[in-house]
Amino acid sequence: MGQNTLLAHLKSEAVLIDKVIADDLRSVTNVQLQEILGHALLSGGKRIRPLLTILSARLCRKKNFQDEKTKAGLYRLAISFEYLHAASLLHDDVIDHADVRRGRPAVNSVWGNTPAILAGDYLHSRAMYLAGTIGGEAILAQISTAAASMVEAEFIQMRSVITKDQSEESYFSVLEGKTAALISAACETGAMYAGEKGKKRAALKHYGRNLGLAFQIIDDLLDYLGDSNTTGKAVGNDFIEGKMTLPLISALKQSTNTDREMLASLLDNTPQERKKNLPEAGNIIAGCDGFVYAGKRAAKLIEEAATGLDLFQDSSEKEILLGLGQYVLKRNK
Amino acid sequence: MGQNTLLAHLKSEAVLIDKVIADDLRSVTNVQLQEILGHALLSGGKRIRPLLTILSARLCRKKNFQDEKTKAGLYRLAISFEYLHAASLLHDDVIDHADVRRGRPAVNSVWGNTPAILAGDYLHSRAMYLAGTIGGEAILAQISTAAASMVEAEFIQMRSVITKDQSEESYFSVLEGKTAALISAACETGAMYAGEKGKKRAALKHYGRNLGLAFQIIDDLLDYLGDSNTTGKAVGNDFIEGKMTLPLISALKQSTNTDREMLASLLDNTPQERKKNLPEAGNIIAGCDGFVYAGKRAAKLIEEAATGLDLFQDSSEKEILLGLGQYVLKRNK
Repeated sequence: MGQNTLLAHLKSEAVLIDKVIADDLRSVTNVQLQEILGHALLSGGKRIRPLLTILSARLCRKKNFQDEKTKAGLYRLAISFEYLHAASLLHDDVIDHADVRRGRPAVNSVWGNTPAILAGDYLHSRAMYLAGTIGGEAILAQISTAAASMVEAEFIQMRSVITKDQSEESYFSVLEGKTAALISAACETGAMYAGEKGKKRAALKHYGRNLGLAFQIIDDLLDYLGDSNTTGKAVGNDFIEGKMTLPLISALKQSTNTDREMLASLLDNTPQERKKNLPEAGNIIAGCDGFVYAGKRAAKLIEEAATGLDLFQDSSEKEILLGLGQYVLKRNK
Repeated sequence: MGQNTLLAHLKSEAVLIDKVIADDLRSVTNVQLQEILGHALLSGGKRIRPLLTILSARLCRKKNFQDEKTKAGLYRLAISFEYLHAASLLHDDVIDHADVRRGRPAVNSVWGNTPAILAGDYLHSRAMYLAGTIGGEAILAQISTAAASMVEAEFIQMRSVITKDQSEESYFSVLEGKTAALISAACETGAMYAGEKGKKRAALKHYGRNLGLAFQIIDDLLDYLGDSNTTGKAVGNDFIEGKMTLPLISALKQSTNTDREMLASLLDNTPQERKKNLPEAGNIIAGCDGFVYAGKRAAKLIEEAATGLDLFQDSSEKEILLGLGQYVLKRNK
């Protein structure tokens, strides 16, 4: 599937998903809360998480998703993953005092921290309501466990910033919780809703996990190498904040003693100093193949995810899932 | 049941509930998160919400709660209400920049806002997990709807502070969402877990709603009339913040033109001015029977809650529920 066909498909699905979200927001009685949720949710994102639930369910094809009720249920179940994702972004933006989200003013910067925290709580509750009442207990357990993992990962990350933890193991344990758990749950939930129990369900769970991990590795790469005009984010934030991401971790591992000492001493500085020395740090990481290593790890994860889908017959859903893997690797924003 | 017998019973149940909470917290893998949750949850509170779930279930007696598995399930289900309550307090304290909670340093003041927000999110997820996996879909729908109502009520309250809304209707709609929804759900959930569907379930739901409303009215009374040495809270906060609570609303309604204009002009001032004029405002409210009116409304709600329990045969659980109603009315902290 060509990149343009893929993007056209993503766009048309995002329109459908946004319609389901807009319908669901009618259940919010408070006008201001409704406005805030609309701002947070309907901002032209790709809706990757709900899309994965929908594609995974259709790939399994155990139910007839042309039946209106089952189809409507699938879409409403799927948006619970967008809700949980948006809830975590709302709280993240309060925590980071962020001004901008997806190119628009962040909720906290328009309405203040209180409405932003509360709106996140609302979406959290609504996500669980949708997941539990449409998907049942097993699917609720999935999504609530993923939500708990996201929090635990934030705590591991806070700790590793302080200790300057250089192990790949703790980097990946943060990624598993912060990004992969929810994406993996989104895929597995689709399979579960389709009534799939065996290897196919496991393959979709694994696909989601690897896609999530690769997505975050590329995110961490773009933090160093992205064009801020394209990504909409400042370059080098992670290094400035002292976050130990894969390019840096692998550079430290693969470097000569001199380079390692140099990188370590740059890291040991204040954030202001790290900002000044960002180009130097980038050069050392590049010299030690830190970026190449991270890119290869992401590509390997996507390759494994794709292999797992060999279980499924060819279909447009399978093509899109494979295309998404390539898209994650090639994205520049 | 005498006050002392009641308090002794509450205390012994709180010990059991705390043990279940402490056990459940072992599932948290991150050490810091576990510590924070222990601090937030195990602080010597009365555990009224889980206690209500347990008492309601036992009152219905449709299951044999001596059977260890059913009993353990009930306690684990019950703590989800304490979790959701604690989650909302964690976020409230971030929002209010509170230093103290239940006589101990607030989580945000010890660990900062980020861990406090995240710990609240964790408890929220865990509450939904417990409710859905132990209680099933209908109970999950209860608790997640109550959580959503809590958020909506906060938005209504923010609005009414700005508009100085003087209607009892909007005061009560805030109370319904902010306090009564969760307490009512805690009681109804107990009945549902016991397999009760009919009038008894409705009576417990109604009991919980009225208990919650009365509890909050008394809270609002104590905000004016409490002894800060006993309550641990500064007196007059609500008036200073411009919150329209029942003593003030009813005073405005029952006052002569002169008193009404005076109260309205005091309200129209800055918070600093309102703090200075607090004694005067208190005198006018007292003169217009605002405190008496609020006290009577609370007593009437408790009376109706008690009448609803006539459906049930006498039992120690019924006695405790009736005793709790009286306790709510008589409390001075």
